[in-house]
Amino acid sequence: MTAMRTLATASRAATRIMARATTAQKRAALSNLAAQLADQAEALAAENRADLEAAKKAGLSAALLDRLRLDVSALVRAVREIAALPDPVGQVTESWRRPNGLDVQRVRTPLGVILLVYEARPGVTVDAAALCILSGNAAILRGGSEAARTNAALAARVADALVAAGLPREAVQTVPTTDRAALAELLALDGLIDLAIPRGGEGLLAFVAEHARVPVLKHARGVCHVFLDASADPEMSTRIVVNAKAQRPGVCNAAECLLVHEVAAPALLAHVGRALADAKVELRAEPRALALLRQADVPAIAATETDFGREFLALTLAVKVVTSLDDALAHIERYGSLHSEAIVTNDLANARRFTREIDASCVLVNASTRFNDGGELGLGAEIGISTSKLHAYGAMGLRELTTTRFVVTGDGQVRI
Amino acid sequence: MTAMRTLATASRAATRIMARATTAQKRAALSNLAAQLADQAEALAAENRADLEAAKKAGLSAALLDRLRLDVSALVRAVREIAALPDPVGQVTESWRRPNGLDVQRVRTPLGVILLVYEARPGVTVDAAALCILSGNAAILRGGSEAARTNAALAARVADALVAAGLPREAVQTVPTTDRAALAELLALDGLIDLAIPRGGEGLLAFVAEHARVPVLKHARGVCHVFLDASADPEMSTRIVVNAKAQRPGVCNAAECLLVHEVAAPALLAHVGRALADAKVELRAEPRALALLRQADVPAIAATETDFGREFLALTLAVKVVTSLDDALAHIERYGSLHSEAIVTNDLANARRFTREIDASCVLVNASTRFNDGGELGLGAEIGISTSKLHAYGAMGLRELTTTRFVVTGDGQVRI
Repeated sequence: MTAMRTLATASRAATRIMARATTAQKRAALSNLAAQLADQAEALAAENRADLEAAKKAGLSAALLDRLRLDVSALVRAVREIAALPDPVGQVTESWRRPNGLDVQRVRTPLGVILLVYEARPGVTVDAAALCILSGNAAILRGGSEAARTNAALAARVADALVAAGLPREAVQTVPTTDRAALAELLALDGLIDLAIPRGGEGLLAFVAEHARVPVLKHARGVCHVFLDASADPEMSTRIVVNAKAQRPGVCNAAECLLVHEVAAPALLAHVGRALADAKVELRAEPRALALLRQADVPAIAATETDFGREFLALTLAVKVVTSLDDALAHIERYGSLHSEAIVTNDLANARRFTREIDASCVLVNASTRFNDGGELGLGAEIGISTSKLHAYGAMGLRELTTTRFVVTGDGQVRI
Repeated sequence: MTAMRTLATASRAATRIMARATTAQKRAALSNLAAQLADQAEALAAENRADLEAAKKAGLSAALLDRLRLDVSALVRAVREIAALPDPVGQVTESWRRPNGLDVQRVRTPLGVILLVYEARPGVTVDAAALCILSGNAAILRGGSEAARTNAALAARVADALVAAGLPREAVQTVPTTDRAALAELLALDGLIDLAIPRGGEGLLAFVAEHARVPVLKHARGVCHVFLDASADPEMSTRIVVNAKAQRPGVCNAAECLLVHEVAAPALLAHVGRALADAKVELRAEPRALALLRQADVPAIAATETDFGREFLALTLAVKVVTSLDDALAHIERYGSLHSEAIVTNDLANARRFTREIDASCVLVNASTRFNDGGELGLGAEIGISTSKLHAYGAMGLRELTTTRFVVTGDGQVRI
């Protein structure tokens, strides 16, 4: 048996114990984990500094460095929050009685073995482990080489926490190599791995799509738009656009394109554009928007066609004037990535059309695109944001790591 | 553009109209369809007879012939039942308010383009079309060559019914060829096809698994067990086992293996075995079961190791005596196919363990395995039974053809 098959077989064996573990046992593992992370915060931060320094030397982008940075106290909080969430396993999501007297229940059950493939973001190691533990799954974590030291230190804490709670350390395993051939082999282990979740850049996603024979939930790029409708309030527009673009530009739910209704464009672009410029955002505008921005003395450059539909992951924003709500809907349909799309409006009919007609995992009215996040939406934590529609569309929390079985109880019924 | 890409592109274009179609419009299409099927029942039956005769000449198995047979009046009833089901699109499955005042909803939305790949069973053409129409999806139907005439006649009725309701005929398209290369091409159209559902034999499933680059829900084989516990009532056991095996042996939720607790085996095997023999079921028993059956003068032959874990799809049943509930659980874990598993018992603790520990899409207590079916479970109709866990595990009805989007409404909230 190859090393990867041995690893996945151990995970599969661990699922049997994890699926039957009590909530108390799983919570104990998480509470151990939070305590250990807090205790060893300084040592973990040191490992992370080592990864960061190596990454800087290797010339990684600012966006990637941002994702690589570990915030141990945020992680401790996240684990404690996950531990406090309801255990989904065994939950009866629905039940009904059939005319023949059969009682039918749908009961939540773990998916099994979940393979997480991610780059940078060492926090995923802990988030994913905690979510998989509470949902009764086994996790195989395959992080990137740039975060290797941080990930290894975190994984050691997870293993200790499991064992201290009487659970198998194989419930959360890390892949001991970042070799792509090993990853390809794992992705082909249909029957041993129930779900692969890749989180990362286009290259990683393409690699996973090519090699996967197991089910995959894509956590893909976000080309998110904010549309300022004719009735948009200038203050609210400014607050939302600046937040959506500049609060954390290196992440997938950051805005990449601003659309402004032509009726309100002169006033809105002056107001919003000024604030964006103050936030050091480079504006790349099509001709109409460019003219209006320059009239208002807001610095901007001419956009090229490739600036639309592009994920900048930086303090750069494409800007366009649209002639109508339909024009905005058509632009988003063409360039959006089914991730997060926002409208700022006070027009009820337009809000209703936007929320009904935009196909995206999260459609927002008068709120920042940055809210498309499991924690912010109230799922407790997230294991990813799916931009494919099967199983989960959008932020995936604990529940999305489970499925339901039918449990049918009768007193001798047969089919006629 | 190739013929297959053109076809899928037309389906994709139809999804936009289908996703926004009103419930009234979609119901009108279904009611047109039911009326047309009823009107043309004789012509449809004639096409089916032609397919059946050709299949007989070609020497197809009895199980396949059974699946090929069309029951038009059952189909009319099924379409009327689907038309009466609640439209899932737009349903708010959950909503809550966040501490910052954001309102979060999860809203059901169609999956998009669904590719059905099936063999025999021409009724799937109508069932799948009706389910996809009401759930706002576009369907691409790829039936088998053995049902070509029946499928074509049914598809023509579907197209007419759509057009008469003002909906695009491209909402339900059939693949004009049963060529496997064309199927392989369709299965690779990631971005145009949102889900492929293969229903058929091992060969078809393996072909789909090999060529699919789009998400797949497997409707795989069923190796279903009935376990008669020590406390099983002999009358109830007989009723359930005979029904599970003999009511329709050619289908996936038919039982393939009988397990009997050793404590009750002498009495149960005599009683149940006699009834099975009367129903012309061939029993293939391991040594202990064989001895007990022969003692009771029930005809039986010795089972070989390959008779366990085998899908007979015929009036043949493997039989085994087990020493305990744990022994039964272990046997099912080893040989089961995650489909339908039943226990007959009056022991509450054992029923509880069986329903918690068996991993199968449907676990039944004191009821026939034949109830693992969308219609019988109360889902209205089914588009398949998934034996993979992602998105849907078990019978898939209307709701499993949708996903949910997040819709977030605020009054200017930004992330802090």
